[in-house]
Amino acid sequence: MSTEGKPIKCKAAIAWEAGKPLSIEEIEVAPPRKGEVRIKVHATGVCHTDAYTLSGKDPEGLFPVVFGHEGGGVVESIGEGVTSVAVGDHVIPLYIPECRECKFCTSGKTNLCSVVRATQGQGLMPDGTTRFSCKDKQIYHYMGCSTFSEYTVVLEISLAKVDPVAPLDKVCLLGCGITTGYGAVTNTAKVEAGSSVVVFGLGGVGLSAIQGAKAVGAKRIIGVDTNPRKYAMATQMGATECINPKDFDKPIQQVLIDMTDGGPDYSFECVGSVDLMRAALECTHKGWGVSTIIGVAPAGAEISTRPFQLVTGRTWKGSAFGGVKGRSELPLLVKRYQDGELDIDSYVTHTFALDEINQAFEAMREGSCIRAVIQMQK
Amino acid sequence: MSTEGKPIKCKAAIAWEAGKPLSIEEIEVAPPRKGEVRIKVHATGVCHTDAYTLSGKDPEGLFPVVFGHEGGGVVESIGEGVTSVAVGDHVIPLYIPECRECKFCTSGKTNLCSVVRATQGQGLMPDGTTRFSCKDKQIYHYMGCSTFSEYTVVLEISLAKVDPVAPLDKVCLLGCGITTGYGAVTNTAKVEAGSSVVVFGLGGVGLSAIQGAKAVGAKRIIGVDTNPRKYAMATQMGATECINPKDFDKPIQQVLIDMTDGGPDYSFECVGSVDLMRAALECTHKGWGVSTIIGVAPAGAEISTRPFQLVTGRTWKGSAFGGVKGRSELPLLVKRYQDGELDIDSYVTHTFALDEINQAFEAMREGSCIRAVIQMQK
Repeated sequence: MSTEGKPIKCKAAIAWEAGKPLSIEEIEVAPPRKGEVRIKVHATGVCHTDAYTLSGKDPEGLFPVVFGHEGGGVVESIGEGVTSVAVGDHVIPLYIPECRECKFCTSGKTNLCSVVRATQGQGLMPDGTTRFSCKDKQIYHYMGCSTFSEYTVVLEISLAKVDPVAPLDKVCLLGCGITTGYGAVTNTAKVEAGSSVVVFGLGGVGLSAIQGAKAVGAKRIIGVDTNPRKYAMATQMGATECINPKDFDKPIQQVLIDMTDGGPDYSFECVGSVDLMRAALECTHKGWGVSTIIGVAPAGAEISTRPFQLVTGRTWKGSAFGGVKGRSELPLLVKRYQDGELDIDSYVTHTFALDEINQAFEAMREGSCIRAVIQMQK
Repeated sequence: MSTEGKPIKCKAAIAWEAGKPLSIEEIEVAPPRKGEVRIKVHATGVCHTDAYTLSGKDPEGLFPVVFGHEGGGVVESIGEGVTSVAVGDHVIPLYIPECRECKFCTSGKTNLCSVVRATQGQGLMPDGTTRFSCKDKQIYHYMGCSTFSEYTVVLEISLAKVDPVAPLDKVCLLGCGITTGYGAVTNTAKVEAGSSVVVFGLGGVGLSAIQGAKAVGAKRIIGVDTNPRKYAMATQMGATECINPKDFDKPIQQVLIDMTDGGPDYSFECVGSVDLMRAALECTHKGWGVSTIIGVAPAGAEISTRPFQLVTGRTWKGSAFGGVKGRSELPLLVKRYQDGELDIDSYVTHTFALDEINQAFEAMREGSCIRAVIQMQK
């Protein structure tokens, strides 16, 4: 019995308001319109960004909403004009689309396709409406993905088609954190073999930056975190040493400068602290140090430094989704995973059913969790 | 009558203390020691950095001192072991040396040779002494150059040997400002043909950034300055338009974003204002904008921005001496001047004798002066 062109009723985790647990509801998912694709979601990671917006601290947060932006699924039906994916294809939704036509996509310089930025930020599809409803209320989309639902609707340009052999409950994590950290090293900073690298923050993003640094042949990879329980995994991923800022009286930038004869060639901030962003810049080597901001700072927070730090040859950059163009590059990362060159399995410290999704947020708060994956389908 | 190995008595402009006019004195210039070269200075520019340190605002300023770091001269004698220049060679002293052996020089990534940084910052030669004395007092060197003297002593590694046909009273300006602005575009930011460029501040450095942008084929070059009298020269040097922030109610970054459909590809701050440094970063295009700080900010001043500006694809850099390796690259800039590809003559708005050097500082304060050149030799 085909569902094509018809609404689907399914389960989803709804955030009715900020600061409250998610509520599992039956929702209706409208069929995909022009350029849209409806997906049966198989698995989704739970990311700190979901928790941040749920907390109410995100000034752009909208409610009620279906969160989730780290998913993997299978195409259920396609809207008018969709040609790049077909029913049955395995896909990863992308919160940064890749239209391949706008000036960003054609620049050759950035992954920040901006063609649907305005409506996506408003929790809507490009035609200004939503595909979710529940109890007669329109429910907002989130980051163009909304993967905390058994079915979701995503733009064709926001879908990476991946090898159907790859397990969706693992490669779904390429939809955000892993790609963000890994790509910041390989795409944004373009770290060269033989470099020294410092990674601030050893959560999922930081671990992925370490994996990226190892992949490109960095000779020294220093992890920095105040929680020593994270060092074992960091070392497994490729860190050559890990240090705790609490173990030193000196500022951490000076510690790193002293450890590395003048500072590392590259640093990555994966925490979202403007103080650490400053330390990450200032620790890098005079003349050529490049520091890349990956973490998301609190609304309104500002970074500062003396301009002398830049005039003496340091470069301050930032990275979103690792500078990765999702449709073009995620299939390659999936292949790296399949070839055993990229560890994803170790990130999955917790697995839950959709009904248990609030436990995933709880696990993140506790700190022992790298990534919780929600198995959407029985 | 050879002066080799003997002290020379000559005239120099001494700054006995901060905030006072320079004083023309007879000084004694000791012969060059190992690795050093004594130069007969033919001409020197007067730079804002000289005025800054003279003012007393430079926390690292030392007195009494012979200022001047934008000179051109002829080798008078050489110390032990000097092989790369010979008596009679035409040379430009370099405040950033190029030893070709330290890890900075061999990195291939920076011009910031640091081999004599410590002693140079203390106003001394590497052996910890000075070559200048006057009225039984030791006089400090300045930036390793001290060109406000008829004779000076400079390290071999701090000398660019240039074509003797080139007029020293013009190419001396390559010793600082012109190279700083031009090189920031060509070496630090590496602006590509077809780019859009904004230059904040249309003094000597800003004009040179404009020349650099024109040389690499930038298609749009916007000069920003609050003094409209500077626009004619900026246009002559290659600016396609000039704007005055005072003519707009909006912040200048928004004006530039609106003018350029999203912001220029590159911006350069040539003033030394941390507020302008922020504007220069924030005006650049999302996804790929690169902003380069050239101006020297007041001691202790800090730059700030929201990290979002970097995470959305902007890069913040800085440049010292235009990223130019003096010994290797200044001869090429001299050739560009000789070939008519680089305008230096237009910068020389004022010429004075050494006795009139305080008039040069006065002319700079008045604002009509791009560069004053002191003709040291009759």
